Parts: sequence; C-alpha cells; structure tokens
Amino acid sequence: MTAFTGRDIIAVSDLSREDIRAILDRAAAFDRARRAGERLRLLDGSILATLFYEPSTRTRLSFESAMLRLGGHVVSVAEARTSSSAAKGETLADTARTVSAYADVIVIRHPAVGSARELAQAAPVPVINAGDGTGEHPTQALLDLYTIERERGRLDGLRIGLVGDLKNGRTVHSLAQALAHWQVSFVFVAPPPLRMPEDITAWLRARGIEVEESGDLAAAAQACDVLYITRIQRERFEDPEEYVRLKGSYVVDRALVEGARPGITIMHPLPRVDEIAPDVDLLPNAAYFRQVESGVAVRMALLAMVLGAV
Amino acid sequence: MTAFTGRDIIAVSDLSREDIRAILDRAAAFDRARRAGERLRLLDGSILATLFYEPSTRTRLSFESAMLRLGGHVVSVAEARTSSSAAKGETLADTARTVSAYADVIVIRHPAVGSARELAQAAPVPVINAGDGTGEHPTQALLDLYTIERERGRLDGLRIGLVGDLKNGRTVHSLAQALAHWQVSFVFVAPPPLRMPEDITAWLRARGIEVEESGDLAAAAQACDVLYITRIQRERFEDPEEYVRLKGSYVVDRALVEGARPGITIMHPLPRVDEIAPDVDLLPNAAYFRQVESGVAVRMALLAMVLGAV
Amino acid sequence: MTAFTGRDIIAVSDLSREDIRAILDRAAAFDRARRAGERLRLLDGSILATLFYEPSTRTRLSFESAMLRLGGHVVSVAEARTSSSAAKGETLADTARTVSAYADVIVIRHPAVGSARELAQAAPVPVINAGDGTGEHPTQALLDLYTIERERGRLDGLRIGLVGDLKNGRTVHSLAQALAHWQVSFVFVAPPPLRMPEDITAWLRARGIEVEESGDLAAAAQACDVLYITRIQRERFEDPEEYVRLKGSYVVDRALVEGARPGITIMHPLPRVDEIAPDVDLLPNAAYFRQVESGVAVRMALLAMVLGAV
Repeated sequence: MTAFTGRDIIAVSDLSREDIRAILDRAAAFDRARRAGERLRLLDGSILATLFYEPSTRTRLSFESAMLRLGGHVVSVAEARTSSSAAKGETLADTARTVSAYADVIVIRHPAVGSARELAQAAPVPVINAGDGTGEHPTQALLDLYTIERERGRLDGLRIGLVGDLKNGRTVHSLAQALAHWQVSFVFVAPPPLRMPEDITAWLRARGIEVEESGDLAAAAQACDVLYITRIQRERFEDPEEYVRLKGSYVVDRALVEGARPGITIMHPLPRVDEIAPDVDLLPNAAYFRQVESGVAVRMALLAMVLGAV
Repeated sequence: MTAFTGRDIIAVSDLSREDIRAILDRAAAFDRARRAGERLRLLDGSILATLFYEPSTRTRLSFESAMLRLGGHVVSVAEARTSSSAAKGETLADTARTVSAYADVIVIRHPAVGSARELAQAAPVPVINAGDGTGEHPTQALLDLYTIERERGRLDGLRIGLVGDLKNGRTVHSLAQALAHWQVSFVFVAPPPLRMPEDITAWLRARGIEVEESGDLAAAAQACDVLYITRIQRERFEDPEEYVRLKGSYVVDRALVEGARPGITIMHPLPRVDEIAPDVDLLPNAAYFRQVESGVAVRMALLAMVLGAV
Repeated sequence: MTAFTGRDIIAVSDLSREDIRAILDRAAAFDRARRAGERLRLLDGSILATLFYEPSTRTRLSFESAMLRLGGHVVSVAEARTSSSAAKGETLADTARTVSAYADVIVIRHPAVGSARELAQAAPVPVINAGDGTGEHPTQALLDLYTIERERGRLDGLRIGLVGDLKNGRTVHSLAQALAHWQVSFVFVAPPPLRMPEDITAWLRARGIEVEESGDLAAAAQACDVLYITRIQRERFEDPEEYVRLKGSYVVDRALVEGARPGITIMHPLPRVDEIAPDVDLLPNAAYFRQVESGVAVRMALLAMVLGAV
C-alpha cells in the first residue's frame, strides 16, 4: 500500500512532480529487472480489463503486455463500441460498476472527452485513461518523459522542440504540461494554422518557461536537444494545396539530423507516415522505437502502483 | 472427478435440485476464498474457449474472469459469426470437434435456439451455454438464485416478484423454473401484452406453487421479498403510444422502494436503461451490482465442476 | 539456445529435411508430455502476439492454445486490418518494430503474398507465417507431415493422394514440397481446370519422385496410403454447371473408404463443406480431427524452438 494504491490516472495535470518522479523511477526499476532477465510476478492473480471504444491496437497491446510481464492477467474488449450493453444504452457509470466485478483495474480508450473520468468516478477499482478523444492521454506523456530522461540522462536544462500539428495534438499538450515541472525550454515548430494554442503557451510562460515559436525546422534542430515530431493530417487544412506545400517543410530526414545539434534525440509518438524518413531509423538519434519499449515499462509502473503492489 | 466432470450445462431443466445446490455451495466456497484473499490455481493448465456468435461483452468477460481467477487460461472469439470457418459454411458439429483440440471447455453464445446443445453433442469437451437466442441462459438463472440466497439467507418461504417483459424474457422463464425447486411463491407484474406465458404459469401451479398476476408494481413491492426487474423494449409493442403510456408504471425509484416491504431486495440482469432510477443504486436494497459479482462466483463453480477440479 | 533460436518460419522451402525432422520430433515429445498429463512451463514469461489481418479463427486459436500450453502468454489482434495504425498508413516494417516491444514472438496472417517475410525482415523478434494470401502457410504443411507420420508410423515408402483443387491450394503445394524430402510417391486427383501446376509436378519429378495424375478418385483410393482432400470452390469455375457436374466426383463417403486400400488414412485441412460425408467421421480412417490436434503440437514445437526454450 502506497499513496498510489487505488488512484485513477486520468490527466497529467492530476499528477504532481513527486508523483511523476515516482512513476519514472518505478518504470526504470522494472526496465532494469527486465534487462536482467527477472521474471516478475507482482500482479499474479490480478486482472486488467482493457475497454477500447475506439481501436488503438498499439496502446491496447502495450497495456496488456505490461500486465502480462508483471504476472497479471487480461480480459480484453477491443471493440467496446459495438458491444451489446453500450448499444442497448447502458451508461458509462453502470459499465464501470459491472466491469469492476470482472477486473481489478480498468484501462479505457474512448472518443469522448471526459469519458475516462466519468467511468473512474463510478468504478470501485482504479481506472487508467488511455486517451479520451481530444482530451487527455496521460500515459503517452509519461512515457515520453521517461524516454527523454533515459536518452538524455536528465530533464532539467534541456531544450525541447515540438514539431508538427501543435494545435490539435493532445500528445504535445500533455507533454508540454508534464515537462513544465522541470527546468526546460521549448521551441514550437508548426505551420501557422496549426500553432500551439495561446493558452498553453501563456501558461508555460507564466511558469517561467522560455518558449520560442518558429517555422524553421532546420534552425530548431540546431538549437534543440530533443525534437518531438507529430503528424500533420490532411484533414486539418481547408485548402489541400496548402497542406501539400507545407507538409514538406516538417519532414525529418538524414540530412536534417546530420545538420542538427550533435547527439540530438528524435522522438515520435507513432504511427508515423512521412514525417520521418526511413533513413533516419538506423541513426543512434532515432529514439522512437525505444520510446515504444518505454511505454511498456511506464505502464508496468502505473499498473503495479495503482494496484498497490509496489 | 465428481458427478459433474465432463457434463454440459445447456438448460436449467437439465439440472436437479441437488445439482443446483452443489453449484450454489461451490460458488459460495469460491466467494469466501476470494474474500479471504486466497489465490486459487485449481485450473492452472486448463484452457477455456469463449465462442461468441453474437456480442455479449459482460457475459464473455464474466466467464473469462472466472477462468482466470481459478488460474486457468482463455482463448477468445468475440466475433465468431464473422470468422472464416463459419462464413465458409462449417457445421457447428465440426466447429465443436475442432475447438475441442484447442480448449478443455467451451462457452458458447449463439443467436439460434438449440445451437448450444448441437455444439455440445459433437464436442468431446464440456460445453456451457451462455445464451442461445430466445432459448436458454442457464448461468444467468443460477447466478440469480445464488444472489437471492446470498441476499436473503435462504430460498424457501420467499415471495418473488418478477417485473417487466415476462413474455419474451428467457431470463425470467429460466429463473422461475429454477426457483420452483424451492418453496417460493410468485407475483408476476407485467403489462397485459407482455404477461408470463400461460404454459409456464400452469406448470408452476401444477407443482403447487402460488402465482399471482398483477399490474400494480407498488402493491407487489409491499407483498414481495424480492423484486426482479427486467427491461420493457419498445420493439415489443405494435402501438408506440402504448409503450410510452405503460413504461412509466414499471419503473422502480427511491419512493417505490421506501414504500415497499422493509428490506426488499431489488435485482436486475443488467444492462438497465430506465427501469431502475439511479437514486436506487445507493440503497442497501439495490442488489444488482452484487448480482454481477455473483455471476463470476457461479461461473467459477461451473468451470471447476465440469472440468473435474473439485 | 539451439540452431532454431531466433529463426523466422516463413516458407517450407526455407526448411531443410533436418529442420523438419527436428520440428516433428519436438512435436512428438510435446504430444507425449501432454498425454502423460505433464504441465509444461517452458515459455512462462514469454509473450506471443497474434496479428491477423484477415480472419482465421482456427489458426489463431491453434497458435494461442499452443502458447498457453507451454506456460506462455498471448496478446491478440484478431482484426488487425481495421486497427488504427494500419488504417493510418503505417508500414509493416514499423508495425514489426513496434509489436516487437510488446511480444517475444509474432504470428502473422495477412492476405498479401510476401507480407510475412516483409514483417520478419524488420522485426527483432522471430516471426511465424500463419498464411500470406496465396503464398505460404508453412505450419499447415508441417502439421500435415506430422499427422501422416503419426497415422502411418513413417513417411518413406508412402503413396499419397492429393485430391480436389490442386491448382489454387497453397496447402497442397507446400505439403508436396515438404514431402519431397522423403521417399514418397504421389497421385494427383483433380478436375482438369484445377490440376496441379506444371512447375510443381516437374520439380517433383526432377527430384526422382513418381507422380501420377488421375481423374478417378476410387482408383486413387485403392492405390494410396493417404488421401488428402481439399475443397473445390464454386468461384474457381467460369461455368457454374461444370462445377456442379464435377464436384460430385470428388466426394469421399463411407462407400469409397470401404472400397479403398485397407487402412487408408483420410485427411483434410478443414473447414470442410461437402467434400467428406459425415458418415466417414466415425471410421478409424478419418484423421482430420486428429490433424487439428497435431496442429497444436507442431505449433508448440515451433514456438519453443524459435524462442530458444528447447
């Protein structure tokens, strides 16, 4: 039993710097155990229910793998939206109370903002938000933080470039918010229609964090320790020609990395399409596949902590 | 090895009073073990296959959770209807023989009456019916019985009100049949077009069981120890106005419970829509979420018994 | 650690006679252990990911059951085609690297020829092909070989009849290729438009293997030790009347088996429709349901071998 036992993980803003520190440290301990070939059984006898009201195979598998690697067990609803109960008009509160009879912890993915918190309020077991529409995706932000720290050895003092669709990306919003607990500075690199929302930029600056906005990816690559790339979706543009014209300016390729600050770390929440050229994959700077592995470690930490096993 | 080893569980009418007694006692034993924090491993090494030809997430999860809580393992076909073999015209008998190579016990849900028995006849491993259309759903009846006994401490001498759509509800038909092994009496509360079928009422009376029919829910609530509520579906009415007019008379709310027989137990097979007002949920009379938990215990009992583990 | 550790299983032609011998021997050892009631835990702590881009419930369950019977664990994507990442345009190479963070071995089924090899080339963990379109389905060929050897006690010296659609059936192509490592002879029984492709027949003959082609199933049944039946699909015929006329000549029924070489073995990859009459099922010659069980043993062998556990 610790301070985390029974807690819901709904939004990054619910977590203090100490909370995040504890999660990252626990993830690192699990990572070390795994590298040492230890078989963990902390969650033997516990059941995770994954409730996915929209498909997100990689997030689902990441949580399920995390549970299994801790000796736990999984029941899975990959297509919760078409399940009979939801179709019959059951409320999320009733679903919460029902699934709590089948599982000791619930991971929910849902297209509607606020749905994870709604489920959590009714569920007697802990609930982890795996993305609620344009709302929150806290475990992504935590695994991004964990990856940055693993790649760079620290968080304080880093200059982080966030690149791509900064307007609509919940990932970059949550990440910026989480990083604001440390002494970092930001460069935001986005096409004009997809700039970081003013309220986030203002909130960061009010906390004393330096924020620069730029349209020049190459310059940002020279200034930053980490470039965090996100996808620019065609649907976000009213004018398809503007999309085509702009898209090319936000592609990371080998030439860009070679002209960047030495040792720069390239990250991406995946899946990627064209934003990062495949010739970057073999460079030591490419951290995005290691980022996927970090996701399992961070989710192991969260599951073990909310279930009171550590 | 007991008398249950290898048995199929297809219909409540296949089970004697002694069979049901053994199942309820076993479920109670598993419930106690679980409350005591015991980790059961009776079914370690055994595999359950859940074959769902129509979606029923809660029934599937309930069985899968039961298997995992006994240390067993699960392979799952959540959408069996669209699977390749069924689409290619394979018979249920061939499916039975094939899946028996992958699993030690099969749970089937299918829209066609009789399909569970058809599968069971061909399968070398035990088969449990999780609902075959308007046919049977024996594990629901068993968990309802178990819940009534847990809430009231006994079955004999109780007056049970069955409320809602008594014409089409296989749940209430199976439950009435199962309860007829004990000294109970019934009040059936239904709109005229949805009355309990005459053959069931006559069958009960022929066994010496008192049955009263009523359209007055408040009066029934004063007369009964248990009210078992089911959903009234719009589709059952030819005249939609009649549906709207009648529906309101069959809603359980806080006022109704407070005017009912003291200590009355309110049950519902779930999912509910409007039949029980949310303000009832916090009353101690509301047994419907405990009913969900009972479902896991009863299914644990059935799995362990047909697999010969107890 | 053996020579198989970390290997991908993509095509039968990648496997030497010694490789196949090792797989069959390992499957037999697992079969014996299972009959002796041993609980195997060789893969405890290892995770299998099943990635099915087209439905194939029996193949998926067979692999998952094999993994569970070895004490391993499973994450499952039954409908990979509709998953978010594939829909967003992720390459198979990126999927490979991502899923390798969640699992220790991947089984893929995909409608496109070559996709399994494409995934395997990018995945750091071993990949097993569970069918890639009209390409390969190596584990089916291996389980067929294993079944023949179990039923007949040997492979050398057998006369094998392959029956049905020999033109389009990847199953019979792979099986013929695998059997060519032993001293067998073949009778190919197919309607003229569905004859075995000339390149395969020529390849077999060039290896010194006797091949006879025939349109007479009864004569073949008298000449062969094993009849391997496959389905003739209506879609393969331009003229539907020709389909109806021909189909009946390729049906195995009780009379045919009773007039066949004594002790003949009847096999089928399943699912069957009308190619084998149900009255054959109870004859000792009917090996097709034992063939399904052999599939689990062979897949246990492959999983344990590529994971270096044996």
